[in-house]
Amino acid sequence: MPPQRVRVPADELRTLATQILMSAGLNDEHAGVVAGAFIWANLRGVDSHGVSRLPRYLELFEKGEANAHPEMKTTHPRDAVVLIDADRAPGPLALTYAMREAITVAKGTGVAWASVRGTVHTGAIGYYTSMAAAEGLAGIGIVAGVPNMGYEGARGAAVATSPLAIALPASKHPDFVLDMATATIALGKIAQYKARGEMLPEGVAVTADGLPTVDPAEAKIPLPVGGAKGSGMSLAFELLASGLAGNPIVSEFHAGKKGHRQNATLIAVDISAFLPVDEFRAIVDATIDAVMALPPSGDAAVLVPGARGAATYDERERDGVPLPPKIWAEITDAAEKFEIRVPETVAAG
Amino acid sequence: MPPQRVRVPADELRTLATQILMSAGLNDEHAGVVAGAFIWANLRGVDSHGVSRLPRYLELFEKGEANAHPEMKTTHPRDAVVLIDADRAPGPLALTYAMREAITVAKGTGVAWASVRGTVHTGAIGYYTSMAAAEGLAGIGIVAGVPNMGYEGARGAAVATSPLAIALPASKHPDFVLDMATATIALGKIAQYKARGEMLPEGVAVTADGLPTVDPAEAKIPLPVGGAKGSGMSLAFELLASGLAGNPIVSEFHAGKKGHRQNATLIAVDISAFLPVDEFRAIVDATIDAVMALPPSGDAAVLVPGARGAATYDERERDGVPLPPKIWAEITDAAEKFEIRVPETVAAG
Repeated sequence: MPPQRVRVPADELRTLATQILMSAGLNDEHAGVVAGAFIWANLRGVDSHGVSRLPRYLELFEKGEANAHPEMKTTHPRDAVVLIDADRAPGPLALTYAMREAITVAKGTGVAWASVRGTVHTGAIGYYTSMAAAEGLAGIGIVAGVPNMGYEGARGAAVATSPLAIALPASKHPDFVLDMATATIALGKIAQYKARGEMLPEGVAVTADGLPTVDPAEAKIPLPVGGAKGSGMSLAFELLASGLAGNPIVSEFHAGKKGHRQNATLIAVDISAFLPVDEFRAIVDATIDAVMALPPSGDAAVLVPGARGAATYDERERDGVPLPPKIWAEITDAAEKFEIRVPETVAAG
Repeated sequence: MPPQRVRVPADELRTLATQILMSAGLNDEHAGVVAGAFIWANLRGVDSHGVSRLPRYLELFEKGEANAHPEMKTTHPRDAVVLIDADRAPGPLALTYAMREAITVAKGTGVAWASVRGTVHTGAIGYYTSMAAAEGLAGIGIVAGVPNMGYEGARGAAVATSPLAIALPASKHPDFVLDMATATIALGKIAQYKARGEMLPEGVAVTADGLPTVDPAEAKIPLPVGGAKGSGMSLAFELLASGLAGNPIVSEFHAGKKGHRQNATLIAVDISAFLPVDEFRAIVDATIDAVMALPPSGDAAVLVPGARGAATYDERERDGVPLPPKIWAEITDAAEKFEIRVPETVAAG
């Protein structure tokens, strides 16, 4: 019998992740922030940005690529602008801090634009934008990273699968959370096709040499969504996130230089500057109602961005976070190395 | 012999459009602004938003759907926020004014968010964002409109083909201008397939009843780019542009009510708040250089957003704006009706 998935209660998983990160050198506040971002991703079903990243983060700290004792520098060159030099902090730390600052600033000026320079792995961008929605603000996030995606008309990895996230508060419905990459397919999804022994759809990825393939074992570079549209968005996000941070990634990558890994932009908009927040929430609710009431094109119900993640969140908060045995083994190994107690309430899941 | 295309010098076309709009009731300043937006679109090759719209605008004024004497109300509820009630002004008037305001505000606060409520036809969104780039700022624009596009998993027209535009200043290269709809294909492109007697690619549009088709004569509803990604972006743009303007379009449409036609959001970012503008321009140039130097996947050169439009602009500014005979006849008919002199320097083109 193959090892089974486990389910770990979210609070225990958060405590465990926090303790492991503290053992890796982060102070307790920083460790809690990073663990919080991981657990949110797991609860929402974004497992690729959850605790599965923990072992990799430990490596990044060991190699000195990520900084366990970052001294992040924040400046406010103008009333509505926040600049944060991340000092190689883990992304979840720098971006949580950046969105907190953006929310505070936006509550004064109405809108705030936070530029985060030189992070190491961004994490789930939907988390930071959701922080704004949870406080009744609109949150927008874009990320720039190292080229791993195709570009319309070009061969090979040209730009990054840079995501866009937009979170907006609702009332009776869960908050609206769009969190999308500019690629047709995620690298993780390609791995899932490979594991299932299925061929990819046509036109979603190419080989390392840039040749079209439907074989998930050969597919190394996802293609941009909508061709020139996806690659154009990715390039625009690079120029906004990296350009305004004075820290270009795409041009340095193609010049053969190894620079910082990621930059990000977070925008917070104080809805109450425009209209009463309850009115805005009612518009979001009514719009979601209208979309969910549309006739479905197939058998499945019509969904809005964020609905599936919210349902998964409720289910996992109740029943625990399911983890593949390999991931759980990596985490418990790390815990044992640091002599941290592993939760005993883990169930087969 | 079928009637030939004509080419009209841009300055003469601008003067003609201005005079026609003044005859339709706009004051000279407003007429010049609207004509300027039309001519920019024609020069850039975005002919669907150029002077071909003039006869339709005259109809909108006659029917009272658009207001030739708008009293646009601007408020600044917070330092970085601009609210504009368009009073049913033509979109090019309201949005040009909104971007001017946003640029002025952003030069102080670093970023400005302008919400434009209740416009009638937006025009070329790339124009307003390019205004920011021309002054060394970043410009971002999104538009919400009446549902005319599909939604992932739903049948029929659900959300709008709402565009996103991002313009950024370069130095040796033309400014970066991304201007994309959230639909896989434009309605105008479907008409071109029909005119050429060609079938559409699979999966880009459906019939009025929501059934898949490759027949351009039957295709009435374009599908969102990337399925859930395109429809999610369109829904997010509706909630940002219409929601913050307190003027929902999608929910009202599906409730059978006829409300305003369009709302828009324009964002201006003062790059000099982040880094010297020349450094930013150099990053844009280097990034464009890196992308253009990528190995092409086919025979065509690798392009960046805005490059083709800039080349078309130069060519048409030199040789005149080409217009189909039907459009030119409509414009000259309108001119004659108002006893306006039609330029004589028109050449066959």
